[in-house]
Amino acid sequence: MMKLKQLLQSRTHLSENLLHGKPGDIRNPSWLHAFTSRVSLSTATDHFADKGNYPDRVYAPYCVYKGKASLTVYPVLPKFSRLDSGGLKVDRHGVMMLQFSPAVGERKYDWEKKQFFALSAVEVGSLLSLSPGGGCEFFHDPSMKTSNAGQVRKSLSVKSMDGGSYFLSLSVVNNIQKTNERLAVPLTAAEFAVMQTACSFALPHILGWDRYMNQKLPRTEATPSTLEWDR
Amino acid sequence: MMKLKQLLQSRTHLSENLLHGKPGDIRNPSWLHAFTSRVSLSTATDHFADKGNYPDRVYAPYCVYKGKASLTVYPVLPKFSRLDSGGLKVDRHGVMMLQFSPAVGERKYDWEKKQFFALSAVEVGSLLSLSPGGGCEFFHDPSMKTSNAGQVRKSLSVKSMDGGSYFLSLSVVNNIQKTNERLAVPLTAAEFAVMQTACSFALPHILGWDRYMNQKLPRTEATPSTLEWDR
Amino acid sequence: MMKLKQLLQSRTHLSENLLHGKPGDIRNPSWLHAFTSRVSLSTATDHFADKGNYPDRVYAPYCVYKGKASLTVYPVLPKFSRLDSGGLKVDRHGVMMLQFSPAVGERKYDWEKKQFFALSAVEVGSLLSLSPGGGCEFFHDPSMKTSNAGQVRKSLSVKSMDGGSYFLSLSVVNNIQKTNERLAVPLTAAEFAVMQTACSFALPHILGWDRYMNQKLPRTEATPSTLEWDR
Amino acid sequence: MMKLKQLLQSRTHLSENLLHGKPGDIRNPSWLHAFTSRVSLSTATDHFADKGNYPDRVYAPYCVYKGKASLTVYPVLPKFSRLDSGGLKVDRHGVMMLQFSPAVGERKYDWEKKQFFALSAVEVGSLLSLSPGGGCEFFHDPSMKTSNAGQVRKSLSVKSMDGGSYFLSLSVVNNIQKTNERLAVPLTAAEFAVMQTACSFALPHILGWDRYMNQKLPRTEATPSTLEWDR
Repeated sequence: MMKLKQLLQSRTHLSENLLHGKPGDIRNPSWLHAFTSRVSLSTATDHFADKGNYPDRVYAPYCVYKGKASLTVYPVLPKFSRLDSGGLKVDRHGVMMLQFSPAVGERKYDWEKKQFFALSAVEVGSLLSLSPGGGCEFFHDPSMKTSNAGQVRKSLSVKSMDGGSYFLSLSVVNNIQKTNERLAVPLTAAEFAVMQTACSFALPHILGWDRYMNQKLPRTEATPSTLEWDR
Repeated sequence: MMKLKQLLQSRTHLSENLLHGKPGDIRNPSWLHAFTSRVSLSTATDHFADKGNYPDRVYAPYCVYKGKASLTVYPVLPKFSRLDSGGLKVDRHGVMMLQFSPAVGERKYDWEKKQFFALSAVEVGSLLSLSPGGGCEFFHDPSMKTSNAGQVRKSLSVKSMDGGSYFLSLSVVNNIQKTNERLAVPLTAAEFAVMQTACSFALPHILGWDRYMNQKLPRTEATPSTLEWDR
Repeated sequence: MMKLKQLLQSRTHLSENLLHGKPGDIRNPSWLHAFTSRVSLSTATDHFADKGNYPDRVYAPYCVYKGKASLTVYPVLPKFSRLDSGGLKVDRHGVMMLQFSPAVGERKYDWEKKQFFALSAVEVGSLLSLSPGGGCEFFHDPSMKTSNAGQVRKSLSVKSMDGGSYFLSLSVVNNIQKTNERLAVPLTAAEFAVMQTACSFALPHILGWDRYMNQKLPRTEATPSTLEWDR
Repeated sequence: MMKLKQLLQSRTHLSENLLHGKPGDIRNPSWLHAFTSRVSLSTATDHFADKGNYPDRVYAPYCVYKGKASLTVYPVLPKFSRLDSGGLKVDRHGVMMLQFSPAVGERKYDWEKKQFFALSAVEVGSLLSLSPGGGCEFFHDPSMKTSNAGQVRKSLSVKSMDGGSYFLSLSVVNNIQKTNERLAVPLTAAEFAVMQTACSFALPHILGWDRYMNQKLPRTEATPSTLEWDR
């Protein structure tokens, strides 16, 4: 079971790495600020970067700005590949991306020091199933299955506070760069409710289930109106 | 933190101002009645008015008519602008618009005296996270960051009543015009449930997250069927 | 307030009347059985009947078959009319249609004796906000505002039973035809959960809010890519 | 009432049978592994197989891998047939398909021994309405209404465990082949929350209600803009 857990962690961190951008990267979710990737841990091929541009890329994150750090949340849809049969299968699972940036002044945040944490579908389920007073903690290793495995450890803890509010704390320990960062954002009950509602909306899309709903369905009988129906 | 709160208030009130219409304004959400804007506080440019017409504008508000006032609720989607890269980013956040109009007789309401209160995503989250017996209150300054800052104060209070019903009360104090208005609408548990369900549906759209779901996704491999997939 | 309540009842019953069909009516939601409208109370013009055919009409009701009667549930979307400006406004509100038919044998139901009860958005809200042990009752007069007002009285009661199940009972008293019918269907907790989940899904569509989400949005700036964006 | 229950069971198992595939079957939901149908109980005509290919078939299951077995969940939409009038009616109800496969080593599962259990809409309602500490059990006979009725009995039990987790256990007793299999998968609270959220999303689609929402609606008045509206 441990290995399965690691497999999952590896998968979600792959996504985090893929989202680490480069200066001027079109994929930069923090479009309000110049962007330089401070840490480049990724060894994975970035399919996106190979392609050049995405005329329909959308930037609509849910942002919460607090005194010590900001939190930016947005969904990353799964990637599909086409089968020889013509069907589509999930190639890489979707995630809910959390991006933390430290404050460096009043209403100013150091986007160059932002850290990512990609929640898998099941980790999103943890947030959705939090009962009053409950909490959860997730551990990711972005270098899983590489020679650097275990060198960088990320953990996100979600703790319940009074009145339905929650305290999110991201810890990133990098033994290679000898750094240890902690970014914390308190969420009010209202802010957490937005996150839960938005995550609940996004979860089926992260799983790719919206694709089931939009597929063209075969009919029970072939009739002259087939073309109309398939339209 | 105070400034951030004010920033948020300013933003939501910008939307309220933009929604203040003029006689015969096509944007008038109260299409059943002649419309004259009683108070024109807005200093913002109304992008809509510049454009002339909206062939697909939709009028489908959720309306509750009560003895002292009516409440009309409808979502206002975020506005996107196109990046040079071709992507889309949120230019102005969406809101849940609440419109209160005082009663002037049995089933008659003075639409000229209607008042707007634009709920931000987090304020919608407050409504969604209300626990039995709980309540919340929001404060807006539509003139934030102008020379009239602090001259008009709006507040909306939501108080729990017996049996799951709620009492919504909007107060608008205008020091410039020396007016002080209060519009109150009680909502039954059923009416509030409709509002919560509709707001829960609308919240991801207010955030612009539905755009994530509809964007055209790049595929992992370029194949001859790319055109079909991108269609 | 009483008159407003009656107005609402009138509105929802208008929909019920419009849904009363004629033999061979294409709109017949009970497509499995021959259909003869037993009672024809409607004085309203049936826009649908004037039009002849609906190539895309959908029949996908949620059906529950019980010992004494069957219950068929399906949403009826609002009707929109186009404004001179090109916009769309709700012309008639959507409803959640409940159709009860009495059993006349094992697994046989007399579809000619079926009775309709059209739940308004707020009445759907009542079902959604039912707390354990709670119940609700709705009263409709399908002849409201006609010379037959008060001659036919429909009431639907929803009572909580043990283990999360509910008992739905429809009473139709027709003073003109001197008839008094009662149709009752018990719903298990699972069957009621399906109804609540489906109603929660349908409610925003009954309000017409899905139209907000699909409207073409104006952009903040006119650019050469406008055509692409509007596509 | 018993017969109605059996009718329902028959219906859902029809779907299970239809999903039993053949080697190389394009419909194979376990696209990661070679596929051989171990048990072929189906006597129903497989409409899909007659058609040859489905260029838009989607494979995006929700998978949970545990020590003794894996669970794969995905929705199967209803099938519609076109009426002479041009309308669409549900021909076969949709289901939520559960697929269990036994573990044969660490992270290895014997997909040839997988077993299906197709949850009807009401059975999905049972999962959605589970209260803390509650459980449910479903019984299916895939050979219902054939000469083999009663020879194969499937049952799925869902039991509440500590901390919001659940234990799913599928039993398949085949008196023809003299086999008796049991496949069990424990789900954490988070994993179960994903399943509930995904099922809640899928339920209206399983009922076919999304088709109501997408149908082209007639308008109240025929105007020159009809073509635009119908577009």
